[in-house]
Amino acid sequence: MLVYLDNNATTMVDPEVFAQMEPFFVKNYGNPNSLHSFGSATHPALRKAMDQLYEGFNASNEDDMVVTSCATESTNWVIKGIYFDHILNKNKNHIITSSVEHPATIMSCKFLETLGVRVTYLPVNKDGIVELDSLKNAIDDKTALVSIMWANNETGMIFPIKELAQIAHENGALFHTDAVQAVGKISVDVQDADVDFMSFSAHKFHGPKGVGGLYIKKDHRVTSLLHGGEHMGGLRSGTLNVAGIVGMGKALEMANSYMDFEKSEVRRLRDKLEDALLQIANVFVVGSRQNRVPNTILASIRGVEGEAMLWDLNKQGIAASTGSACASETLESNPVLEAIGADKELAHTAVRFSLSRFTTEKEIDFAIDITTKAIKRLRDISSSFSYAPSWHKSRL
Amino acid sequence: MLVYLDNNATTMVDPEVFAQMEPFFVKNYGNPNSLHSFGSATHPALRKAMDQLYEGFNASNEDDMVVTSCATESTNWVIKGIYFDHILNKNKNHIITSSVEHPATIMSCKFLETLGVRVTYLPVNKDGIVELDSLKNAIDDKTALVSIMWANNETGMIFPIKELAQIAHENGALFHTDAVQAVGKISVDVQDADVDFMSFSAHKFHGPKGVGGLYIKKDHRVTSLLHGGEHMGGLRSGTLNVAGIVGMGKALEMANSYMDFEKSEVRRLRDKLEDALLQIANVFVVGSRQNRVPNTILASIRGVEGEAMLWDLNKQGIAASTGSACASETLESNPVLEAIGADKELAHTAVRFSLSRFTTEKEIDFAIDITTKAIKRLRDISSSFSYAPSWHKSRL
Repeated sequence: MLVYLDNNATTMVDPEVFAQMEPFFVKNYGNPNSLHSFGSATHPALRKAMDQLYEGFNASNEDDMVVTSCATESTNWVIKGIYFDHILNKNKNHIITSSVEHPATIMSCKFLETLGVRVTYLPVNKDGIVELDSLKNAIDDKTALVSIMWANNETGMIFPIKELAQIAHENGALFHTDAVQAVGKISVDVQDADVDFMSFSAHKFHGPKGVGGLYIKKDHRVTSLLHGGEHMGGLRSGTLNVAGIVGMGKALEMANSYMDFEKSEVRRLRDKLEDALLQIANVFVVGSRQNRVPNTILASIRGVEGEAMLWDLNKQGIAASTGSACASETLESNPVLEAIGADKELAHTAVRFSLSRFTTEKEIDFAIDITTKAIKRLRDISSSFSYAPSWHKSRL
Repeated sequence: MLVYLDNNATTMVDPEVFAQMEPFFVKNYGNPNSLHSFGSATHPALRKAMDQLYEGFNASNEDDMVVTSCATESTNWVIKGIYFDHILNKNKNHIITSSVEHPATIMSCKFLETLGVRVTYLPVNKDGIVELDSLKNAIDDKTALVSIMWANNETGMIFPIKELAQIAHENGALFHTDAVQAVGKISVDVQDADVDFMSFSAHKFHGPKGVGGLYIKKDHRVTSLLHGGEHMGGLRSGTLNVAGIVGMGKALEMANSYMDFEKSEVRRLRDKLEDALLQIANVFVVGSRQNRVPNTILASIRGVEGEAMLWDLNKQGIAASTGSACASETLESNPVLEAIGADKELAHTAVRFSLSRFTTEKEIDFAIDITTKAIKRLRDISSSFSYAPSWHKSRL
């Protein structure tokens, strides 16, 4: 049995999504910008997909919804665009983000630091969340942008985006959110949250890889990252990835139609796995369930090296993660666990399980059985566990 | 009958290419960066695709071949990367390109001009080609980058890339080429041409839309455009578009295997269409055939508005273009025709026909028939043609 519990890394393209995409490779291959029938043959499906994006995020018709190649591009676009628009030779010099952002945000900010930009990386509390006061204390009249994720990729913790955006606006700063891990798991309403920019990626909600987007609130402009042939209203150049766009629109529509299922059934299976893990001594899970997306568990298993656990599970058919796939090639301690103040040893014991609407009860039962046995076996051979001088008492 | 003669805008995904891609949507959907079997299941196909790219461009193993979302991204990456690496707070201040580049290059350069960078747009001669002396005269010790396309998208004219790169290097500048319109049409050998950077896009050679690449010569580095999760050796972040990469590799392999066919059969059909057009009075074709890619004709038809021609052809099943699809939403005169010195009226009469290995003799015969009749009909109703004071004498 193969059980995929790494849906925060990427998801299966829903067969219904793929069915919508399929005609746009070999059959309807026209360039939408061409003025002939091969071009215009793509327009109805593209229009429908754009409608699905506007509707799926509750964007207003005057807002911009720009298709990019992924959320990493969208996030780079906003952060570097803000640099050109408000910092380089302008009167602002400061960007605020959190210490637990995806590398797309962190590394874009680190790059701007090399250009002299001041960046504040807000800490998170024990629950893995950025506190409002922390933003209030860091923001000043030189702050051009606040960029904070909607939900964390590793812990699944949901951040108070609406309140954070409000603080940014009250202080004359723009607000961007990386919503990659929120879309398809909780309601993502750009008007309600009142964000200025929002990044998303189709492959995290059962759409294809290689396509994502940036939401831009009406009357907002940001210097393009990709200049060129004036595609997407001149905001993002490059020949439109028709199949990808069609797939992303359909995937978002489907994700929203499954939202109740996500809140009930996916959550129920997640809780079942989580409850089983918490039965085991010295297993901890980061963050309260009520502030967490319904599909994610970041567990810390005292005495079990995360990578060892991962390999053991994998050998038996269970795909999990030690954290972000984007950083998994470097075998370092989990940065989010470090950020929430876990001790060094515990930060190496993180295992993330992330479910999807395709996860079945049978799979979860199997995962519980395999994981429980794996923990026992790995602890039996773990020197650090045997010799651990004290148990970790708190719930992190 | 529907005849697609707009292959410089985009191409049909080859069914064999799609067959290679198809398993990576619903079935093998893992993230290649994940440390479990779903991730590693993608590795053999990815490795093969990367091999196909290295081999297809004759890159050395020490060179970098970085997958991007399209050539527009690749070109923006190089031009803006050079700005950060060699211009901003550094000792260079100058970029040289040509006046007939794709908008990705032109608009990236225009953007850098707003930041104070000096940009020279080299003219082209009557044949639509940048002359070596023109580069020699423009380059100086402040020139950071020379960026000149391998083949022009509108005329199909092939530029002397090897010689241009040599001039750049002799003057201490780096050399980038936009090879989008060369790949699959003529041999593209990065070591022979000795370019430092090269952009390409899969959908121009029967691969999928939404994936392209940047070749980077060994020991060269350029500041990333997409910072983040350290994909592609840290050079270009963003979850790998597995299906797209697999498709691009296969497409390049196939394009090269069809190179002889391109040089013989595609060229023969192109020449047949071109000869038929040149039989008609006051029809001109830009550039000599020996310096042109085998699939392209940019015809200027005195007295026939390009858009009118396009619509007429389209109504009868023939898809052509007035020039770049990337600029086709703006009904302006053809910029390349303007650049090569065509008078204003003639610059509005351009029609581009671009064939592919899927173009058949029957289609070309049909196109000749329809186009000949369309020219006659449109000239009959054209006031500008009737009243034209003089015929255009030269061959452009």
